[in-house]
Amino acid sequence: MAERGATMAREIAEQPDALERLLREGQAQFAQARDQIERARPRFALLAARGTSDHAALYAKYLIETKLGLPVGLVSASTLTVYDAQPRYDDVLWIALSQSGGSPDLVESTERARAAGATTIAMTNAADSPLALAADLHIDVMAGPEQAVAATKSYTSELLASWLLVNAWCGRDSGEASSIPDYARAVLDRGAGLDVAPRYRFVERLVTTGRGFAYPTAREAALKLMETSYLAAHAFSSADLMHGPLAMIDEDRPVIAVVPFGAGGAAMQPVLDRLIERGADLLVEGDLTRAPGAAAHIPLPHDVAEDLAPILQIIPLQQLAYAMAIARGYDPDSPRGLRKVTETR
Amino acid sequence: MAERGATMAREIAEQPDALERLLREGQAQFAQARDQIERARPRFALLAARGTSDHAALYAKYLIETKLGLPVGLVSASTLTVYDAQPRYDDVLWIALSQSGGSPDLVESTERARAAGATTIAMTNAADSPLALAADLHIDVMAGPEQAVAATKSYTSELLASWLLVNAWCGRDSGEASSIPDYARAVLDRGAGLDVAPRYRFVERLVTTGRGFAYPTAREAALKLMETSYLAAHAFSSADLMHGPLAMIDEDRPVIAVVPFGAGGAAMQPVLDRLIERGADLLVEGDLTRAPGAAAHIPLPHDVAEDLAPILQIIPLQQLAYAMAIARGYDPDSPRGLRKVTETR
Repeated sequence: MAERGATMAREIAEQPDALERLLREGQAQFAQARDQIERARPRFALLAARGTSDHAALYAKYLIETKLGLPVGLVSASTLTVYDAQPRYDDVLWIALSQSGGSPDLVESTERARAAGATTIAMTNAADSPLALAADLHIDVMAGPEQAVAATKSYTSELLASWLLVNAWCGRDSGEASSIPDYARAVLDRGAGLDVAPRYRFVERLVTTGRGFAYPTAREAALKLMETSYLAAHAFSSADLMHGPLAMIDEDRPVIAVVPFGAGGAAMQPVLDRLIERGADLLVEGDLTRAPGAAAHIPLPHDVAEDLAPILQIIPLQQLAYAMAIARGYDPDSPRGLRKVTETR
Repeated sequence: MAERGATMAREIAEQPDALERLLREGQAQFAQARDQIERARPRFALLAARGTSDHAALYAKYLIETKLGLPVGLVSASTLTVYDAQPRYDDVLWIALSQSGGSPDLVESTERARAAGATTIAMTNAADSPLALAADLHIDVMAGPEQAVAATKSYTSELLASWLLVNAWCGRDSGEASSIPDYARAVLDRGAGLDVAPRYRFVERLVTTGRGFAYPTAREAALKLMETSYLAAHAFSSADLMHGPLAMIDEDRPVIAVVPFGAGGAAMQPVLDRLIERGADLLVEGDLTRAPGAAAHIPLPHDVAEDLAPILQIIPLQQLAYAMAIARGYDPDSPRGLRKVTETR
């Protein structure tokens, strides 16, 4: 029998290579997507995804909103598949993200969006999947086969593919991303997520927070902790945290704040101040100067643009989720009650 | 000193009257909104809100998607206020929802959306608020002054106002909603949320779930429980629950499922089956025939359309949040660390 968590650990470690492969071999598909988008001239983007891929979709939403100024919506698949809505999508770009490309509701909603006039792109890690075949265009994130139930490398590859897609759509070259695999390798090798894991050995409830580009990281980190250690890990945007959930932060409920170097980190200042003032047990990932009184810190490179940083931010938090599960005697490769391809309609 | 929770209890009880007032005195503003929308002919809707109002916005998203077939997005305010995106919103209808109309980031993003060409509607409970003044058109939800930090009556009034707005936009009369205040009174008087509260006296972690129109109810119920009893209350759409978080459901973590009579309830069948199979402690609010083995039940009227039912669904769950806080010795009128008007940018 394989060692507990061996698959998740291997897939976490494969991320720098996977990112490098996408940059080296995947570029042609983004040029092709740009041509298709230019012909379609979309006025609105809709993103469809579930689980981990939904957090990549949220990242793509911020990219499209900030770099292209287009309005973007995250799709509620049920309006198409449960309530049978009859949409008008002529000027819509529809992007469906899924590791396996196998979820029936994503396939069905993508087919319906296409029939309703949308230009459809499937972004998956499975070129032969039903979702890849259902869309006008397929973008392969090239992460290689992913076997652990808790997705890791497919997530960072979806993030980079989203960045490359939006970058191509803006008509820019991808040079800025070329150093990301090396940065990812350095973050991985530093092992900061493994180092902080012991202090969370007995925690049962935890809050993650971030703002803007860092918010998808907070969401994905919470999901990893839930999936592998069965924690009550709650993610809040730092703005939402001020509206109600702040009441539940106490000394027994530590906070992990993803604080980017840049405008997103600056916007988190008020909530970081409130957390320190309330005596919260705070771990800062990233810019520690925003909360020097924090109880713990995971460093990140200072010189990576805020819109690329999420590819690096998640890596130590994947390590943390892995190490916490192992320390508790769980097997993060096969969480109880979960299957790799989830069939929802 | 006032009795603990007296304000929240009073505002919960005022909901039928508030709904009646909106139906009786508020109709002209929806006709006016319809005229304005008809002139603008929007192709997309963007909804901006935070906290409880964000759940009303999610409900409005389902309404617009299913009844009008328009693509809809929930706004990430940070793209405008933190990252300074330059959007193109000529064919966008922007709807900002807020009880107080006082949150600076909503005011700023609404002003920027208007400057970018959007037709803007503010839906608030405060006609003189900065948000009401910032938009092209104001819809007053007429809930009357709300003093408890945990919003209750402003939420159900926002739901009804959203329904009336979309209904007017579709060119329909509002007759179908006329019996909602009486139904709300019956649900309130039954007190089913108070009756089930004792079984949750010692719970620390809890999951709420729903699908489609019932999903905003699950989200809002979780927020109420977090705000007033500091629980780790997690809301998941029933489809997302299958993708990962199912692993964290065990005998110590009860599930409250909002199961509507109709298509949304039918779509929840697979997740209800899995929960029963895993031995989860399940409370069904609504259609008990979908999970006859459930441990507890909150009944709801069978004969209310699924798109209006959320106005009723939340009432027993507000009662539950109130009763749990009182039983634990907390004061739900003033949760620790919270203020009524939250200033985020």
